Amino acid sequence: MKEIKPFVTLVGAGPGDIELITLKGIRAIREADVILYDALVNEELLDYAKADCVKIYVGKRAERLSTSQDEINRLLVDYAQNYGHVVRLKGGDPFVFGRGGEELDYVHAYDIPTAVVPGISSSIGLTGLQQIPLTHRGISESFWVITGSTSDTNLSSDLQLAVKSKATVVILMGFAKLAQIAAQYQHEGRGALPIAVIQSGSTTEERVVLGTVDTIVDRVRAENIGAPAIIVLGDVVAKHAQFAETWKNIKQDVLS
Amino acid sequence: MKEIKPFVTLVGAGPGDIELITLKGIRAIREADVILYDALVNEELLDYAKADCVKIYVGKRAERLSTSQDEINRLLVDYAQNYGHVVRLKGGDPFVFGRGGEELDYVHAYDIPTAVVPGISSSIGLTGLQQIPLTHRGISESFWVITGSTSDTNLSSDLQLAVKSKATVVILMGFAKLAQIAAQYQHEGRGALPIAVIQSGSTTEERVVLGTVDTIVDRVRAENIGAPAIIVLGDVVAKHAQFAETWKNIKQDVLS
Repeated sequence: MKEIKPFVTLVGAGPGDIELITLKGIRAIREADVILYDALVNEELLDYAKADCVKIYVGKRAERLSTSQDEINRLLVDYAQNYGHVVRLKGGDPFVFGRGGEELDYVHAYDIPTAVVPGISSSIGLTGLQQIPLTHRGISESFWVITGSTSDTNLSSDLQLAVKSKATVVILMGFAKLAQIAAQYQHEGRGALPIAVIQSGSTTEERVVLGTVDTIVDRVRAENIGAPAIIVLGDVVAKHAQFAETWKNIKQDVLS
Repeated sequence: MKEIKPFVTLVGAGPGDIELITLKGIRAIREADVILYDALVNEELLDYAKADCVKIYVGKRAERLSTSQDEINRLLVDYAQNYGHVVRLKGGDPFVFGRGGEELDYVHAYDIPTAVVPGISSSIGLTGLQQIPLTHRGISESFWVITGSTSDTNLSSDLQLAVKSKATVVILMGFAKLAQIAAQYQHEGRGALPIAVIQSGSTTEERVVLGTVDTIVDRVRAENIGAPAIIVLGDVVAKHAQFAETWKNIKQDVLS
């Protein structure tokens, strides 16, 4: 009988496009005895796995209850102890709101060795594909990535400081709170700040809506945009190829 | 004669490990007629290029003058017009302090079409490999990536607000200003904040120094750490496997 060597690798699968995973991520998938994967992971990546690899879906979808984090933690340990190398395949990067740290804490408590393979976070990857530079000389010297959904489901209080900063701000999992986010910027007198909402970025369903803080809620409603979507706020958004045209239309709307 | 179709693709090569580039990045390299690459790019990646691909080094190294940004911009256009598909291969991600936005602006002025392939930024990738979670429930709801070297070579003024925030802060290209950064945190009463300095991350020369804001300058000097290095500040740094041990040693130093 084959000796079991428990091992857990957290792998970032990237934002959706199957080609936006790293070579190291593909290698981990190829070597995995078990793969636990999330809803936002492109399932075509599983084709790289060995024929006898056990593949388990632990994501959240509308029609079924998600596997709880406690249950995922237990599954990681159980499968590692009984099968060997478990790959935990997560959308984006494992440590960007991916709860990867909690999974490592749990696994380490059982003395199981681990590795982490970083992934393209939607915060950097989806803005990049849309050619919105997160930083740009003379425009932005930093970017700040914030969750729109904390453990108590609120908008992170970090946003209160972020609206006062010159950083490009990227909000993940915050689409449902777009109006609240816009209100916080308006309260700071920043209603004219350029903003982009990118839905299903890097997939064939990708859609982008551009505007200003003052106009974005109406524009998103008019375009029928929904989650999953990321929100990008900052003057760098005006660098998007379609922004000037959008802005012209907005001004015409205001004048008409 | 083959028709020339000018095209420029900005590709993020990742932080150094040859396996931390994406599949899409490898495909772009394979298809390139010309590659312009930086100092921080792993040169083994060039082995994926076609046999007749023109490879041009435009990076900065101690022993030679770097190619200026203006010159790089001109080379991108010249090579695209005369050879076809130019891949601009950059360390990390093209838009995270990579001046990718400026290159696109210049190329677009010549009506040359472009694409961007995101890369693993050292800010996310090197912390991930060290198992320092940028975000963690109950500890950090955001992360803020800031340049240590602005266009006028100063520390970004964004750091003044960052030291007051609860965000995990990652400073790129700031190693030379470590003492100044530590002083700003100390001025805010945050001398006990955990901090990590990661030198040459993801390569065989990778070295990590852990400490607190109060102790890091001495520790970095004792360990003889140098650039290139990233700086990570936040309570999440205490999640690093060696942090508890480091802390014990620091306390013993203080008591002895």
